[in-house]
Amino acid sequence: MSSSSSPSRISEIRRDAVFDRWVVFSPARARRPSDFKSHAPASNPNPNRNPNALPSCPFCIGRESECAPEIFRLPAGCGATWKIRVIENLFPALRRDVEPPVPGDTADAAWLVKLSLPGFGFHDVVIETPYHSMHLPDLSPQEAGEVLLAYKERILQFKRHGSIKYVQVFKNHGASAGASMSHSHSQIMGLPLIPPTVAARLNATKEWFERTGKCSLCEIRSEEILINETVHFFAIVPFAASYPFEIWIVPRHHSSHFHDIDSEKAADLGSLLKLMLRKLSKQLNDPPYNFMIHAAPLELAPSCLPYMHWFLQIVPQLNRLAGFEMASGCFINPVFPEDAAKVLREVDCSI
Amino acid sequence: MSSSSSPSRISEIRRDAVFDRWVVFSPARARRPSDFKSHAPASNPNPNRNPNALPSCPFCIGRESECAPEIFRLPAGCGATWKIRVIENLFPALRRDVEPPVPGDTADAAWLVKLSLPGFGFHDVVIETPYHSMHLPDLSPQEAGEVLLAYKERILQFKRHGSIKYVQVFKNHGASAGASMSHSHSQIMGLPLIPPTVAARLNATKEWFERTGKCSLCEIRSEEILINETVHFFAIVPFAASYPFEIWIVPRHHSSHFHDIDSEKAADLGSLLKLMLRKLSKQLNDPPYNFMIHAAPLELAPSCLPYMHWFLQIVPQLNRLAGFEMASGCFINPVFPEDAAKVLREVDCSI
Repeated sequence: MSSSSSPSRISEIRRDAVFDRWVVFSPARARRPSDFKSHAPASNPNPNRNPNALPSCPFCIGRESECAPEIFRLPAGCGATWKIRVIENLFPALRRDVEPPVPGDTADAAWLVKLSLPGFGFHDVVIETPYHSMHLPDLSPQEAGEVLLAYKERILQFKRHGSIKYVQVFKNHGASAGASMSHSHSQIMGLPLIPPTVAARLNATKEWFERTGKCSLCEIRSEEILINETVHFFAIVPFAASYPFEIWIVPRHHSSHFHDIDSEKAADLGSLLKLMLRKLSKQLNDPPYNFMIHAAPLELAPSCLPYMHWFLQIVPQLNRLAGFEMASGCFINPVFPEDAAKVLREVDCSI
Repeated sequence: MSSSSSPSRISEIRRDAVFDRWVVFSPARARRPSDFKSHAPASNPNPNRNPNALPSCPFCIGRESECAPEIFRLPAGCGATWKIRVIENLFPALRRDVEPPVPGDTADAAWLVKLSLPGFGFHDVVIETPYHSMHLPDLSPQEAGEVLLAYKERILQFKRHGSIKYVQVFKNHGASAGASMSHSHSQIMGLPLIPPTVAARLNATKEWFERTGKCSLCEIRSEEILINETVHFFAIVPFAASYPFEIWIVPRHHSSHFHDIDSEKAADLGSLLKLMLRKLSKQLNDPPYNFMIHAAPLELAPSCLPYMHWFLQIVPQLNRLAGFEMASGCFINPVFPEDAAKVLREVDCSI
C-alpha cells in the first residue's frame, strides 16, 4: 500500500479495499496541498463558556420545551444542569410511529420485487453541549467522550428494539455541509434495512479477508499516511481517500461494533477527534465538515466479525461532487493521501 | 410501481431497481414541491447570437490556439466556421500519455490485490457552441443533436482504441455544479476500468431481468411519473429518484449503447433535452445542473444486451449531500417523484 512522496507525481488510480470503490488522484488539477482552504468557512465562533442561551435557538439550555420530545439527557439524573440531550428530530426523515416492516418484507428476495416500504425508522438529534457558543472541538476530551457514549447508549436502545438493522451516526457541521442548526449537534438514524455502502463494505472486507486472512482495517496503518495516534486509536488519511484531507480514525485493536466502546476509550477517541477537527479547522480555514461512524450491522453473523472493523470518517467540505462522481461512483481527488497526511501531521495545535 | 398523488403523504422508502440503491421520501421535511427554487442560479444569460467572443474565454471562436489540442471539429471540413469542437482537457484527471494497464492488471483478481494503477485514460471537453452567450437549451433541436453526435463520434474512437472499457459523458453547468468554465461545454472521460455504479447497474438490471424476464428500463414508463415524450424518447422523474426533480430521458425502444444513436434520433433527443433543461430553469430558478449518460460498457457480452438500456440523467443541484448520504449511500428526497413530475409536466415553455 505504499507510494513514495515525491513533488512531481503523475496521475494514479487507487482502489479502496474497504468500500470497493476507486479514486483518481490527479495532481495536475491541484494547487499545492498546503494551499487548500475553505472558501466558505463554517464560522465557528471562539469558544466561550457563556451560559446565556441564544434567544432564537431551541437547542440552548433553558429552552428544552421548544424542542421535539427528549429521549434522555446526560449525565443521568442531572435535571436542569444537563450536558448532553438526545431528542427526536422535529423533521424526521423516517417515522417511529408507523409499523415496522415485517421480517419477510426486507428479505432480499421480497425487497427486490416489492419496491417500496413504509418509512419506518428513527431519526434523533444529539445536542452535544448546552451552550450555543461551544463546538465539539472546544469540549474537553472527557466531554467529547461523553458525546460518544451518548451515541453508544442510543445504539444499545435500538439494538433492544429489534426492528432496526443498522444505526448511522453522523454530524453535519456548517450550513454547506448540511447542518440546519448552528448549535453543535449530531444525528443518529435507526434504519430498518442495511444501507448500500454497508453491504458493499461487508462484501469488500470479506473478499480481502478470504484472500489475505487479515482484516483490511487492522492492516491499514502505515507511517506515510499516519497523522496522529493515541493509546487506543490512530488517525490516517486513507490510501485511497475519496476526498481531499479525508481522515479515518481507527481503533488499534480489532472491534466490529462502535457500541462496545468503554468510557476510557471514549475519552481517548474524544481527544483524537478534537485534535483532528482542530487541525482541519486551522489548516483549511474552518471548513464545513461531516463525520460519520462506519460500524457493523446490529445483528452480525459471528463469521463476519473477523473482518468488520468500525471506524470514524471525517470529510471536510472543500469541493462539490460533480457529474463524473455522481455518474460513475468514482472520485477525483487532487491531493495524494501521503501529502495530505504530512500537512496535517505538521499542523501545530498546541495553543 | 404506482403510488397515489395525495397532498398528505407519509414517509416512504423506495428501491431503485436500476442502480440498486434506496431512497427515503420524506415529505415532512419539504416545502411544497412548487416552492423549490435554486438559491444559487447558474446565471444563464439570455440567448443572444452575438458572434463576438468574450476576450477572456479560450472556448470562444477565434481563440482556438489558446486551448489544449483539438481532437476534431464539426461539421466535418468546416474550417474556421466550426459549430462544435472536441478538445483535450487542459487539466486532465487521467493522462493519455502513460502506458495503458495490461489486461491482466484490470482483471478482478489482480485488481483486488494490486491497489494502484497508473492514471491512464482520456479526459476531453466538448465545446458545444462557438458563442459565449449561448447555452445548450438555446441551440436548435438539430444543433443540440449535433452535440450528441459529437459524443457518439468520440465514443466510437475510444472503442477502436481498445484500452478503454467505459466512456462517461457528463455536463456540469454552473459553478456550484462543478463547472470551471462558463462557456457551454460538456466532458467525456475514457476509463480503463468499469466504474462502480456501472457494475452495480449491470448486477441490478440482470437480477431484475432474471426475475421478471424484462428489461427494467423498458418497463419504467408510467403516466404518473411521465413529464413529456417524443417519437423516440420519454422523460420521467424516476420512481425512486435520488434527487428532487431528477429527470431521466429514456429511449422508447431497447438500446444498450448510446453510440448506436442516429441523426434523426439525436435531433429528437436534442429537442427533449432542450425542453427538460428549459423546464428546470423556469421552474427552479435557473439551477446549476449536471447531466450524465448511463450507457453499457464498450465491450458487452451478448447475454447482457437484453437488460442494459442506456439513458440520460439530469440532476438539478438544489441541496448538498450531507453526512447521512455520504455514509450510507442512501438518499433522502423531500419531493415525491409523482409530485415533481406533475409540476414539470405543467411548466409552460411555449414562449
